[in-house]
Amino acid sequence: MLILDLLGTFFFAVSGSLLAARKHFDIVGSLLLASLAGLGGGVVRDLVLHEGVPNAFDQPVYLVPVAVAALLVLTGLIHETRFRRTLLLFDAAGLALFCIGGTVTAHAAGINAVSAALLGLTSAVGGGVLRDVVANEVPQLFNPRGVYAIPAMLGAALTGLLLELGWFSVYAGGTIAVLVFGLRVLSLRLGWHVPLANGRRPVQ
Amino acid sequence: MLILDLLGTFFFAVSGSLLAARKHFDIVGSLLLASLAGLGGGVVRDLVLHEGVPNAFDQPVYLVPVAVAALLVLTGLIHETRFRRTLLLFDAAGLALFCIGGTVTAHAAGINAVSAALLGLTSAVGGGVLRDVVANEVPQLFNPRGVYAIPAMLGAALTGLLLELGWFSVYAGGTIAVLVFGLRVLSLRLGWHVPLANGRRPVQ
Amino acid sequence: MLILDLLGTFFFAVSGSLLAARKHFDIVGSLLLASLAGLGGGVVRDLVLHEGVPNAFDQPVYLVPVAVAALLVLTGLIHETRFRRTLLLFDAAGLALFCIGGTVTAHAAGINAVSAALLGLTSAVGGGVLRDVVANEVPQLFNPRGVYAIPAMLGAALTGLLLELGWFSVYAGGTIAVLVFGLRVLSLRLGWHVPLANGRRPVQ
Repeated sequence: MLILDLLGTFFFAVSGSLLAARKHFDIVGSLLLASLAGLGGGVVRDLVLHEGVPNAFDQPVYLVPVAVAALLVLTGLIHETRFRRTLLLFDAAGLALFCIGGTVTAHAAGINAVSAALLGLTSAVGGGVLRDVVANEVPQLFNPRGVYAIPAMLGAALTGLLLELGWFSVYAGGTIAVLVFGLRVLSLRLGWHVPLANGRRPVQ
Repeated sequence: MLILDLLGTFFFAVSGSLLAARKHFDIVGSLLLASLAGLGGGVVRDLVLHEGVPNAFDQPVYLVPVAVAALLVLTGLIHETRFRRTLLLFDAAGLALFCIGGTVTAHAAGINAVSAALLGLTSAVGGGVLRDVVANEVPQLFNPRGVYAIPAMLGAALTGLLLELGWFSVYAGGTIAVLVFGLRVLSLRLGWHVPLANGRRPVQ
Repeated sequence: MLILDLLGTFFFAVSGSLLAARKHFDIVGSLLLASLAGLGGGVVRDLVLHEGVPNAFDQPVYLVPVAVAALLVLTGLIHETRFRRTLLLFDAAGLALFCIGGTVTAHAAGINAVSAALLGLTSAVGGGVLRDVVANEVPQLFNPRGVYAIPAMLGAALTGLLLELGWFSVYAGGTIAVLVFGLRVLSLRLGWHVPLANGRRPVQ
């Protein structure tokens, strides 16, 4: 579980460092945006759960994937165009892992299933929102030309439902992860989009 | 009390969904901005009060006004120009309810009266600031062509004072609510403005 | 200790009110940006430490330096060009005090030394990030033409190390403060800069 969590953190952190590189921020910006992207969602979840010091601050091992991400971008081993498709796949994997893991963590803290699913969703997408807000960008999450939050919502809701019914298991979790990952990857392949806030279709 | 709180949440949430519509965000943005506007101020208050899981996460009923607001904007039943004046009135009512209710909640948690008033103000205006910051806009709150925070400050301070003196009652609360609402509405009618940070008058 | 803390708060708060003046915000913006700059870093630290109500909300005396800063900018006694170099010096002093004080506070709450240093850094630079984010600006912290976070990182790390070894004392703290202050001032004098996130040199 910890290894999956650190891996998810690493892939989200890469997105923060890449954004810092694109915006010509310095390595301080790279480290902060990587931390926000990789750890921010989980920290918000833990603050809301009111269960002691958030994991990311309590266990310094969470700083390792952040530092590695910033270093790989600094040295140019990872950049915008290189591994573009690989990075999208890994980000989709992070999304799947975090929406399930976040819901399980919240439910284990004794919160009701609806709130647990909401906090699972927060774990999955909150880091990206914090990254974009601090970098003074409109959150990618709101971009109608991409289906990102919907698979995470579905995954968190399914996880919450199964936990409530007592039917959640490693197999169920794995199936949900494949579903979330698959929906996200399919949406990229097939160019799905989400309706706008005002009900219109996005301009192509 | 809960009904007033849900009503206030609804009117603030509408402002979040309308902003998402104006900025061409998708329904995910609409739901997130509606949540931030309607629930964000109270969540910050509850996090600072350190009294367990924030209300908005603990009681899923708080998601209902947010979902209804996003739906009404999605279907076009509420839009920018329609009900413009009605929405400003309801927003003023939300401001009045939240600055008083937030102060009462904070005082009941055992914090001193000055901090309680500060947290009441946070409940009333924090959601709007979070909404604007996440949407990558300059907070409306800082716009000198409008008097928004001052009536809420006054309402929170009066509530804190009366609570400290033991003179607070439903009647006192109602009177303060009318005062805050009246000042806000009058400021819109008469075009009042607040001095700039540097003491100059805003450019007309 | 409290006096040093209030002094640091005042100098950071001035930066918030000056930003509000530059951006033509009203006095509400001035007060909010001054609060975020002066108190925001410490509030985030206290929320993460999960040790009760954050100091800034529990002790109303912390509002005094914020109000004084907003008043001095409102009346024009402090403005952008006046005291520019003095303000940079005081800001450097605030940085030194907050990175050490924040680490000591966090360590005293029983957290491990690495996390304590991280929270000390958060205390020192978090307020400035919140100030810039809420004002809808790219954080100054990410500007490669300035060395700001690195001295604070060094100071927080040294403080954490000495605390862990049991060697921390008032003298050690004073020495670290002089070191952080000196590095910050030297970097301004000598025009040092930090590598970009992508490893390139900043454009001159």
